[in-house]
Amino acid sequence: MSVVVQNIPRADAALIKRLGAAGVATVHESQRRTGLMLSQMRPNQQDRSIAGSAVTISAPPGDNWMIHVAIEQLHEGDIMVLAPTAPCDMGYFGDLLATSAMARGCRAIVIDAGVRDTRDLRAMGFDVWSTAVSAQGTVKETPGSVNIPIVCAGVAVHPGDVIVADDDGVCVVPRAEAETVMTEAQKRLDAEEAKRQRLASGELGLDIYDMRGRLAAKGLKYI
Amino acid sequence: MSVVVQNIPRADAALIKRLGAAGVATVHESQRRTGLMLSQMRPNQQDRSIAGSAVTISAPPGDNWMIHVAIEQLHEGDIMVLAPTAPCDMGYFGDLLATSAMARGCRAIVIDAGVRDTRDLRAMGFDVWSTAVSAQGTVKETPGSVNIPIVCAGVAVHPGDVIVADDDGVCVVPRAEAETVMTEAQKRLDAEEAKRQRLASGELGLDIYDMRGRLAAKGLKYI
Amino acid sequence: MSVVVQNIPRADAALIKRLGAAGVATVHESQRRTGLMLSQMRPNQQDRSIAGSAVTISAPPGDNWMIHVAIEQLHEGDIMVLAPTAPCDMGYFGDLLATSAMARGCRAIVIDAGVRDTRDLRAMGFDVWSTAVSAQGTVKETPGSVNIPIVCAGVAVHPGDVIVADDDGVCVVPRAEAETVMTEAQKRLDAEEAKRQRLASGELGLDIYDMRGRLAAKGLKYI
Amino acid sequence: MSVVVQNIPRADAALIKRLGAAGVATVHESQRRTGLMLSQMRPNQQDRSIAGSAVTISAPPGDNWMIHVAIEQLHEGDIMVLAPTAPCDMGYFGDLLATSAMARGCRAIVIDAGVRDTRDLRAMGFDVWSTAVSAQGTVKETPGSVNIPIVCAGVAVHPGDVIVADDDGVCVVPRAEAETVMTEAQKRLDAEEAKRQRLASGELGLDIYDMRGRLAAKGLKYI
Amino acid sequence: MSVVVQNIPRADAALIKRLGAAGVATVHESQRRTGLMLSQMRPNQQDRSIAGSAVTISAPPGDNWMIHVAIEQLHEGDIMVLAPTAPCDMGYFGDLLATSAMARGCRAIVIDAGVRDTRDLRAMGFDVWSTAVSAQGTVKETPGSVNIPIVCAGVAVHPGDVIVADDDGVCVVPRAEAETVMTEAQKRLDAEEAKRQRLASGELGLDIYDMRGRLAAKGLKYI
Amino acid sequence: MSVVVQNIPRADAALIKRLGAAGVATVHESQRRTGLMLSQMRPNQQDRSIAGSAVTISAPPGDNWMIHVAIEQLHEGDIMVLAPTAPCDMGYFGDLLATSAMARGCRAIVIDAGVRDTRDLRAMGFDVWSTAVSAQGTVKETPGSVNIPIVCAGVAVHPGDVIVADDDGVCVVPRAEAETVMTEAQKRLDAEEAKRQRLASGELGLDIYDMRGRLAAKGLKYI
Repeated sequence: MSVVVQNIPRADAALIKRLGAAGVATVHESQRRTGLMLSQMRPNQQDRSIAGSAVTISAPPGDNWMIHVAIEQLHEGDIMVLAPTAPCDMGYFGDLLATSAMARGCRAIVIDAGVRDTRDLRAMGFDVWSTAVSAQGTVKETPGSVNIPIVCAGVAVHPGDVIVADDDGVCVVPRAEAETVMTEAQKRLDAEEAKRQRLASGELGLDIYDMRGRLAAKGLKYI
Repeated sequence: MSVVVQNIPRADAALIKRLGAAGVATVHESQRRTGLMLSQMRPNQQDRSIAGSAVTISAPPGDNWMIHVAIEQLHEGDIMVLAPTAPCDMGYFGDLLATSAMARGCRAIVIDAGVRDTRDLRAMGFDVWSTAVSAQGTVKETPGSVNIPIVCAGVAVHPGDVIVADDDGVCVVPRAEAETVMTEAQKRLDAEEAKRQRLASGELGLDIYDMRGRLAAKGLKYI
Repeated sequence: MSVVVQNIPRADAALIKRLGAAGVATVHESQRRTGLMLSQMRPNQQDRSIAGSAVTISAPPGDNWMIHVAIEQLHEGDIMVLAPTAPCDMGYFGDLLATSAMARGCRAIVIDAGVRDTRDLRAMGFDVWSTAVSAQGTVKETPGSVNIPIVCAGVAVHPGDVIVADDDGVCVVPRAEAETVMTEAQKRLDAEEAKRQRLASGELGLDIYDMRGRLAAKGLKYI
Repeated sequence: MSVVVQNIPRADAALIKRLGAAGVATVHESQRRTGLMLSQMRPNQQDRSIAGSAVTISAPPGDNWMIHVAIEQLHEGDIMVLAPTAPCDMGYFGDLLATSAMARGCRAIVIDAGVRDTRDLRAMGFDVWSTAVSAQGTVKETPGSVNIPIVCAGVAVHPGDVIVADDDGVCVVPRAEAETVMTEAQKRLDAEEAKRQRLASGELGLDIYDMRGRLAAKGLKYI
Repeated sequence: MSVVVQNIPRADAALIKRLGAAGVATVHESQRRTGLMLSQMRPNQQDRSIAGSAVTISAPPGDNWMIHVAIEQLHEGDIMVLAPTAPCDMGYFGDLLATSAMARGCRAIVIDAGVRDTRDLRAMGFDVWSTAVSAQGTVKETPGSVNIPIVCAGVAVHPGDVIVADDDGVCVVPRAEAETVMTEAQKRLDAEEAKRQRLASGELGLDIYDMRGRLAAKGLKYI
Repeated sequence: MSVVVQNIPRADAALIKRLGAAGVATVHESQRRTGLMLSQMRPNQQDRSIAGSAVTISAPPGDNWMIHVAIEQLHEGDIMVLAPTAPCDMGYFGDLLATSAMARGCRAIVIDAGVRDTRDLRAMGFDVWSTAVSAQGTVKETPGSVNIPIVCAGVAVHPGDVIVADDDGVCVVPRAEAETVMTEAQKRLDAEEAKRQRLASGELGLDIYDMRGRLAAKGLKYI
């Protein structure tokens, strides 16, 4: 049963933008340390920090047909998130598909598989997080689905979830929790700034967080 | 039985250059998706796309003696391709050997093992694709062979085959097929340019490649 | 039994600096090819070559409490070396801890686990060698130890050992051997320069090292 | 937010038993090739084929406290399914916990981490599928959750889903689909028996499935 | 270009049988330590030592159509050797295909991918060496080839080569060298028996092989 | 500098035997969860639980010469522990070396590399824990050392340390701590028996260990 779900809800664009600015580590902490993809999910470029709405793709191993189908469903600011139905490191995605996706306003893909034309993708400004780089070609024989729940690099992703991605990796924020998470993230960002200044001045975390007593109680000895 | 085959045929230099410009993904597709090394074979530098004739090296694990032997066999434009006879991530190759290879006109190595002095190699403009980076030193105790058929990162390589390498990885073109492959690659490059323009203008692959009927026939449903 | 050893001996600062300049490959060779960490230990930045005194951290998996404890023990020029007590790729270290460490004069960490805020760490000039990048948060529940002998990425490290790290990876020099190793390293550096010139001029290693006879004796044949 | 969901729906016991008898390969095929855990999930024993209702456990890496909590929630025939919140191969589970679980009627665990006392577990008849074997001890410091949705070895699991496990691995059947899947599985089992006899008699799949024409149409040539 | 080569030469049956009895380690040594597949290639059963003629299968990732085609080409005593054209751990092969292969006189498969129904395969006496166990289903959409040269688990295999497989793994003997290799293997087996008796009586390899002088010359010191 | 240290202290034989009977999990817990080798270290046989004194071997990758040297140093009840100086999965050890070792009273090897003749080794009753099975042959060209400190599968091992090994893996007990560890282990074994009976009768760990209050305090909620 291959389906394309055509109308998916998305989070508020301004909220998505703020989550992207907060970055993966902060957002992940702000939702109780959930949603982080496995560390094998690595960026194809450096120094980028983005967020967008997930258009999910469930594809057979070695078959990239569904990307063509998914591109039609893309809105401005979406991020494609592709998981093969079995582990596969083949090159599902390259510069031609990126050209097509960019024409629809999409500028990033997160893929638990391989990509190719990696230099061109960097030059085009199309951001990629993938678990492999491979030129290995795929077929177009078996349909999969678009905008169904998937598991990508160890994390459940629903269509419309907010994807946050930077040099540290990729974090998934459930759409319904995006606002709560951002509120918590903002608190952390504000608090971090104050802490950063104290730490930079030479104060120790041991004192700022009042850890010495608890460490001693747990048996830590200085010799 | 350790041998050095001294005279190997090579493909035409202009043809090799064109294959390098076409790049790994296109060349791989143009020879029916064969010849691509495993995705663990990664570049030591970014934004390089080259091609050359393979001088093959079969070396014992942890023994780099044969590289000295191979260097004498190098011609202008050759690429060394080394496979250890058992899996090994030690550092077979560094800046001194690169200096020697460059003096013979060779500017790249493809190695299913480790390299070292990686910063120097980038600075010297000596290109490397390897499955590991490691400073671990090797010995010079057991001869191997030069210019015999090897299997490197999952692909059979014969001496004189054309090696194409870029940011996506490494592809091997059998020497006898190089011209046919380039002819096919040129067709693809020409066709891609036209497609790229249509996709950039917003046309969909679904329509350009007339996929909708076949997808429906295979059971894809829109909901 | 969790302990913090507060006063550790360190090698001479000028000596440490010279080892850093010599680099991982040369230093590793100069101590009879020992001390190199596994090749999974990779830098977070390019084109850096440093050395420092090891402040060792033994931490429970997924628990970064001991880094706060270790920071108090840091001296100018130290490098933190952290090994979890079981394999773990979580993000033990990020920009706030780096801010605190830098305030104590430490500018690098070597960690057999994950780090986060990798872009910020590069921007701050805080050097990192790690076996993973991950934003996954850690707890502060179980004490470990600081400045005890550890095994990090396959190598035994004692507090005060000299850590040498560059693009090739990380090498550990036992403190008591640092001077001997540097003497040997200097000899290699001097000899390498002469060899480099001969090799660059086109002389072959086969001749410079007089290998032809020994290769023939071991059965190498030219055909 | 750590929670224990106490009352979860379960599938019919007779239905579960039939799914266990059908086995992983058949069940997986019968739900359109979904639900199979990654191939790293391996059995601790040979020649067992079971099924049960999932009691899910989300546990911090290196912390097995929640297993004690989960055991209280077990019913006769349940299977514990544990996923750490970050990759971890430590030994969460051994013979004492198995003794406790067996007293509640549970005879199996599926765990995306390590187990220990593996010989005792086999001797006790407590079945285990795990991604590692490790004696490494865990702590009891941080609560997780019981009977919430988790992702285990690449597959989303909901409490009460039917877990089917044998020598081939582990497959998850959503509770609401269990009956439909079993109906389909029975059809396959019946059909397989007839096919097996024809194949055993020497008839070819090429003829039974009438593949020759389609293969020729796709370009297969005999030479 | 998908092809089936229908008539392949095979080695002499008695010779093949002797190679199987000699076992992987001896045969591998007897052909100058070549031909051994990667150590990821593991048996599905214990205590089997076999040999047979390779019927090679090149299959697309996740597509097992070619196994049906290959079965028609099998002769008594053949072993199927399958390599996917890109890394893939899906379950290409199970009990129905084994039933069909056995009807043609084939009793083993060597596959650089996954198999399923592993318990049934052991019960049927159908031997398997594979790089994975997985129930993940495959499609039948894209033809590959039968009896062309392939690379399987790091080794080049030609149709008709002799495959030797036991608990240690799989070794490939080029057909044309099978007799020479067996002659050498027999010498080793004869010599080993004598050595075994001397070693069992307490004589040391150091003395039997006269190693002490050479070790001292290379710098070994007793302290 | 290759050395053989000829006289090493060993722990008391009766004590060693008791540690072997206690098993890896208990011993590892009894020394504060230290000393466990990585989970890649797997047994070649089932249902064995042994202990012995470590005779350590540091060997070059792919060179098994030092095993011959080590065998001369073996005493009744010793276990060889071999670590290559760089990662290597080649087959260092097989039935002939086992025959020789058994003649000296040694019945087991722990090796961070490959072994071969695995079926014969099981038949002979020679126990093996290794990180690989491989028939790949090694050379005898470069000396290493015997009875020096090594790091094997992530753990520091000194000659004379007690090695405990069973189906769960391998644990290293520093010789000087062997008696203290066994005293602690005996306490655990005695306590475990009482706990096992309570758990078997249906009492919960939650109650036996009085966990409910602490879980609630840490925020666990039942719903």
